[in-house]
Amino acid sequence: MAARDEVVLTGWRAKGHEIIFESDTRAGKAFDVGLILAILTSIVVVMLESVESIRQEHGVLLTGAEWAFTLLFTVEYLLRLMCVTRPVRYARSFFGIVDLLAILPTYVSVLVPGTQALAVIRTLRILRVFRVLKLANYVRESETMVRALAASRRKIEVFVSAVLMLVVIFGSLMYLIEGPENGFTSIPRGIYWAIVTLTTVGYGDIAPQTNLGQAVSAMIMILGYGIIAVPTGIVSVQFARAEREAMHERGVSGQACPGCGAGGHAGDAEYCRLCGGRM
Amino acid sequence: MAARDEVVLTGWRAKGHEIIFESDTRAGKAFDVGLILAILTSIVVVMLESVESIRQEHGVLLTGAEWAFTLLFTVEYLLRLMCVTRPVRYARSFFGIVDLLAILPTYVSVLVPGTQALAVIRTLRILRVFRVLKLANYVRESETMVRALAASRRKIEVFVSAVLMLVVIFGSLMYLIEGPENGFTSIPRGIYWAIVTLTTVGYGDIAPQTNLGQAVSAMIMILGYGIIAVPTGIVSVQFARAEREAMHERGVSGQACPGCGAGGHAGDAEYCRLCGGRM
Amino acid sequence: MAARDEVVLTGWRAKGHEIIFESDTRAGKAFDVGLILAILTSIVVVMLESVESIRQEHGVLLTGAEWAFTLLFTVEYLLRLMCVTRPVRYARSFFGIVDLLAILPTYVSVLVPGTQALAVIRTLRILRVFRVLKLANYVRESETMVRALAASRRKIEVFVSAVLMLVVIFGSLMYLIEGPENGFTSIPRGIYWAIVTLTTVGYGDIAPQTNLGQAVSAMIMILGYGIIAVPTGIVSVQFARAEREAMHERGVSGQACPGCGAGGHAGDAEYCRLCGGRM
Amino acid sequence: MAARDEVVLTGWRAKGHEIIFESDTRAGKAFDVGLILAILTSIVVVMLESVESIRQEHGVLLTGAEWAFTLLFTVEYLLRLMCVTRPVRYARSFFGIVDLLAILPTYVSVLVPGTQALAVIRTLRILRVFRVLKLANYVRESETMVRALAASRRKIEVFVSAVLMLVVIFGSLMYLIEGPENGFTSIPRGIYWAIVTLTTVGYGDIAPQTNLGQAVSAMIMILGYGIIAVPTGIVSVQFARAEREAMHERGVSGQACPGCGAGGHAGDAEYCRLCGGRM
Repeated sequence: MAARDEVVLTGWRAKGHEIIFESDTRAGKAFDVGLILAILTSIVVVMLESVESIRQEHGVLLTGAEWAFTLLFTVEYLLRLMCVTRPVRYARSFFGIVDLLAILPTYVSVLVPGTQALAVIRTLRILRVFRVLKLANYVRESETMVRALAASRRKIEVFVSAVLMLVVIFGSLMYLIEGPENGFTSIPRGIYWAIVTLTTVGYGDIAPQTNLGQAVSAMIMILGYGIIAVPTGIVSVQFARAEREAMHERGVSGQACPGCGAGGHAGDAEYCRLCGGRM
Repeated sequence: MAARDEVVLTGWRAKGHEIIFESDTRAGKAFDVGLILAILTSIVVVMLESVESIRQEHGVLLTGAEWAFTLLFTVEYLLRLMCVTRPVRYARSFFGIVDLLAILPTYVSVLVPGTQALAVIRTLRILRVFRVLKLANYVRESETMVRALAASRRKIEVFVSAVLMLVVIFGSLMYLIEGPENGFTSIPRGIYWAIVTLTTVGYGDIAPQTNLGQAVSAMIMILGYGIIAVPTGIVSVQFARAEREAMHERGVSGQACPGCGAGGHAGDAEYCRLCGGRM
Repeated sequence: MAARDEVVLTGWRAKGHEIIFESDTRAGKAFDVGLILAILTSIVVVMLESVESIRQEHGVLLTGAEWAFTLLFTVEYLLRLMCVTRPVRYARSFFGIVDLLAILPTYVSVLVPGTQALAVIRTLRILRVFRVLKLANYVRESETMVRALAASRRKIEVFVSAVLMLVVIFGSLMYLIEGPENGFTSIPRGIYWAIVTLTTVGYGDIAPQTNLGQAVSAMIMILGYGIIAVPTGIVSVQFARAEREAMHERGVSGQACPGCGAGGHAGDAEYCRLCGGRM
Repeated sequence: MAARDEVVLTGWRAKGHEIIFESDTRAGKAFDVGLILAILTSIVVVMLESVESIRQEHGVLLTGAEWAFTLLFTVEYLLRLMCVTRPVRYARSFFGIVDLLAILPTYVSVLVPGTQALAVIRTLRILRVFRVLKLANYVRESETMVRALAASRRKIEVFVSAVLMLVVIFGSLMYLIEGPENGFTSIPRGIYWAIVTLTTVGYGDIAPQTNLGQAVSAMIMILGYGIIAVPTGIVSVQFARAEREAMHERGVSGQACPGCGAGGHAGDAEYCRLCGGRM
């Protein structure tokens, strides 16, 4: 079925695909750099607009920039749809949806009457920040690091599960001990407090007041201080393994000496270091 | 004595033991999955009931769910007792007690008159969250990690002792320096503050006010920032060792000496290191 | 000169030295355990006495315990002085001074008239908590860990210097940016805030209010979040080296094969793994 | 061109260069120690002057010290300019500018009338703290550590970028969820909060109030608690590599092949791995 659907792009659509989706050519690179700048600037605009004082002073300018970026991203979105062989698949992908959500609110805001609804819709434009994730594609190292993290995914899951178990138990205990009169109004709030404490964030908006509560929370703190070592240990070992594998590939020849069969030669070895035979 | 006591389970009790305590069979797996879901849901119910607004709105529903889970867990508890050869031993085990505490409060709440006592008993149902620990049995990796932590247990104990010594000394010093008028009402409270600070939680409910106090607490902070490296170092080395041992087992030749049968030879061994025979 | 001063202890003083300063004999071990318990209990007594409500209720009991421990420690102090060959040297050592400071305040409190001065002297008894450091002598592992830390002492010093440099610069900057009206009343206070922030403690008693101040402090936070990796890296490497050295001692023979000269044999090797010659 | 510009210093200027810029001679070492002490003392003076109470009491003394240090540093600055072959290059270098900024404000404060402007200029003297960076030159280890950090610079950049992406997204989300009424007055403020939370600083000046906000921030906290492992892993691996390389250099044979002169042979090499000649 996959083969049957395959449409070969020709003419300007092939050219467009090359520019928009690839970055080998000069035009493709220019497009990428331009897009990154546009995304970053549009995010700054949304940020600035959220600041009350700036919105009141430079409102017109920001609205203009807003519309300029919306039109630009609309053109980009349509071009992307036209330059892929399977537009629906793109539209349904994560970045397809993010691209659509980045432009939709501005258009909807024109159609909808009433200032209240408008305010809600305007805030939705903030979803545009998710486009920032596109930048990750341009950083080669991120792939290596994500791979290293993915390799220790199972261990991280176990660790997070253990942390969740701990915060559920300690959060419930503290709800029992401190009670609603000291800010622990419910078990979920107790769990929120336990997370704030175990991760050593410690806002202080909810803090134990009773002696027993302070003793128990001292335990959680020392526990949290100690188990932070676990993810660190996991990741360190994983990074060390990746390093070792890379070194192994570079440094040590896989060749064995034809004379004496000894291995472990340096990558540039031409003679066996043990018997002197030619390799 | 152990042999004398041994009772062989037969008939439905043997079948029940297989389903409840083992997870090799189809029925055993289904039971496990069902139980996990029931435990998680019952914990969510207890959590929701602790939220004032939800309790008032959906009180009847929550009470119904409460009784349903209590009956379910009662059946499970009785089945467990009947399907082991030594019921008393199970009843006295950690999970036996947790299972009992998970169902008892609901029953007791019927017998006890008066709303005040009732409130206390109801909160005891929260102890049910300890059942969440049962989930740990189903995660294979947790065993490896617990083993790695157990191997460095002695070092962790030493570290925790050192931390306790530090907080006792610094907590007392700060009680002397700051005094009750700045929130350090007693030495135990000073120690609580020292733990909050050393572990970098930093609630801010108690904070040094005097210049000397701030200078001393700056020292504790830098100390705490530095010695967090110690548990991390311990666990990292432990994880690295576990990794190396696993690698070593793979790296070591699987061959046994044909002469003396000794194993554990290096991968490049051509002669047995114990008897000198050709391999 | 050292030889000239040497006095050989005889009779009961030799016996006392054996019991008090050594822990090889039965009596020596019993003395050590008793002393540890006495120190811990006396510290708990001082702690409890610092709690207002407990002092008012059990005042007489605590005073009695106070005097009992003071007399006990006085006897111990005198015995120590008598059972060493150089009493002055002991009296001037760290633990000699701590031992004296632990008993002196109780005696002085009798001589001094007036309740005000009395309160000051009483609080000095808290210095007794330093005796807790004696416990460190009984933990063998602590020595290994202290040695590992001492080996990386130079690196830790450099790290702490770098941290101090950073907090001086950022603390001064924030004093310029935020000024006294936002809680940054002086440069030392700014430095205190920078330490609180860089070490991720974050009390919140002083927090940046201006936009620029919040931007700069965001930088410090990310910096602090990142450079915590440095002490961890130092200690991890140090622990790994200690581990490797221990393994090396155990695992790998220092012997080279007399036949072919190859090294790196397992500790139990009797024949060279490469040429088969007897080792 | 470089050769054409080269001016050879002679006479007292050569001598001065030796003393001021080098530390091999006796005079050079004395100058360095004196300068370090002067810098540290002058920074303490600036710090003390920022404390209101100390300024009022010891104002005259501090002003005197201020002028003494300004004159001293002026002499040092002029000597540095005279004792280098390219004064302009020095004046434009980082430390040249810092040296100038350290003395300028005191002189300007005489010329400028009006107390308001004076206060601004006085605070600029705080820039003198940047001179503290000069101390880094005297610590040999700092170079090794900076090199280790520089080697993993690319990975740290990727990590910081990922952190920035996360705080932008979470900060915007929380602005949407919590809104200005709960302290999240704008997206930049939301990002500031996200940084405070992710780095586990947790001031508590802005804290989520709504249930959804607390749930989302619990996610950020666990995320922040986990990804602190990433820089730690990077730095640990880097330190371990530096360690290994140092060890390797020792482990590698110092011998050069007598045939082809190549070095860097393994410790157990008997034949040159490049030309096969006997070593």
